[in-house]
Amino acid sequence: MSLATTIKILECSTSDRWIEQALANLDTILLDHSHCERKAAGIAINMMFRYPSFRQLVKQLTAIAKEELEHFEQVNQWLDKKEIPLAPLNSPPYGSKLKAQIRHQEPDRLLDSLLVSALIEARSHERLGLLGEHCPEPELAKFYRSLMASEARHYGMYWVLATQYCERKVVDKRLEELSIIESEILSTLYHEPRIHS
Amino acid sequence: MSLATTIKILECSTSDRWIEQALANLDTILLDHSHCERKAAGIAINMMFRYPSFRQLVKQLTAIAKEELEHFEQVNQWLDKKEIPLAPLNSPPYGSKLKAQIRHQEPDRLLDSLLVSALIEARSHERLGLLGEHCPEPELAKFYRSLMASEARHYGMYWVLATQYCERKVVDKRLEELSIIESEILSTLYHEPRIHS
Repeated sequence: MSLATTIKILECSTSDRWIEQALANLDTILLDHSHCERKAAGIAINMMFRYPSFRQLVKQLTAIAKEELEHFEQVNQWLDKKEIPLAPLNSPPYGSKLKAQIRHQEPDRLLDSLLVSALIEARSHERLGLLGEHCPEPELAKFYRSLMASEARHYGMYWVLATQYCERKVVDKRLEELSIIESEILSTLYHEPRIHS
Repeated sequence: MSLATTIKILECSTSDRWIEQALANLDTILLDHSHCERKAAGIAINMMFRYPSFRQLVKQLTAIAKEELEHFEQVNQWLDKKEIPLAPLNSPPYGSKLKAQIRHQEPDRLLDSLLVSALIEARSHERLGLLGEHCPEPELAKFYRSLMASEARHYGMYWVLATQYCERKVVDKRLEELSIIESEILSTLYHEPRIHS
């Protein structure tokens, strides 16, 4: 059973080609992972700036942002350990293509923002799980497995927030649309190894 | 001895008029404080996005951002307790006027960003200290005093970072200029009660 069948929200599972690419480039994947954690914290905080009076949203996103920063620190400790210098990396098209799906009018914007974040977390959960399963370095594999649960929790939190602010029927319909797009974006492997290549 | 004389980096101490204004509007001050903590976390994370490969900066700013989010949660618990709803508040000119001092060319931009943050933290330290001293609600006063130490630590961290990336002589000169401007901005009390009015 592939992870994606247990991660209901993902339309398609990650291809073996991504796993091969990632395993052949573990250092770059680790560096990109560091950027992903920082970006995830940034996205959560930016959303709080946009909806400063949405109590539940602010509460949950604060918890998520704190945890992403915690992971960011942990990944950076791995970079230190492996003497991989922090360096900028160009982003794969994944994030910007998903962001382009966010509609501009409220409440669509809120719904789409939450669901795009849910999808990114769900995909991260799946891929960190694959790294946890296939990574040949036992300690690093263990580290990836240790992060999986949080990513799963985060996508659950984003989804629950969406259902708190929008009708369940509307959430389900839009999630289906977005998850198809998310899988389409990943159907062509990006030429550079990334968590979301 | 006023706090500002112990907080070497501040040019002038806060006026009694600010304390009076704040004590007469404790609920608004608490709400504004919540916004300040979120903004402080946002500023730290944005700076990490701008300098993703500056190891020390990333490390220190991650720690600061985590702590600001911790305080944000704590202030929001106080808002809950006092049944003050989270609501947007317009910002006093303090932040934008200080931000306008940040030069656009590197390395000036980095230096100015770090010193502006140091000044904001130092001023927050001073003012939370004043609230801790004068607030008539013992529990709330205790809470303000509990936050003071972190603000002091944060301004120290920003200053140390500045000296790590720039020559000490250059840091001292620019800090002197900016601290004069910071005090000038606050010399006219903003008509609405804010942490930085």
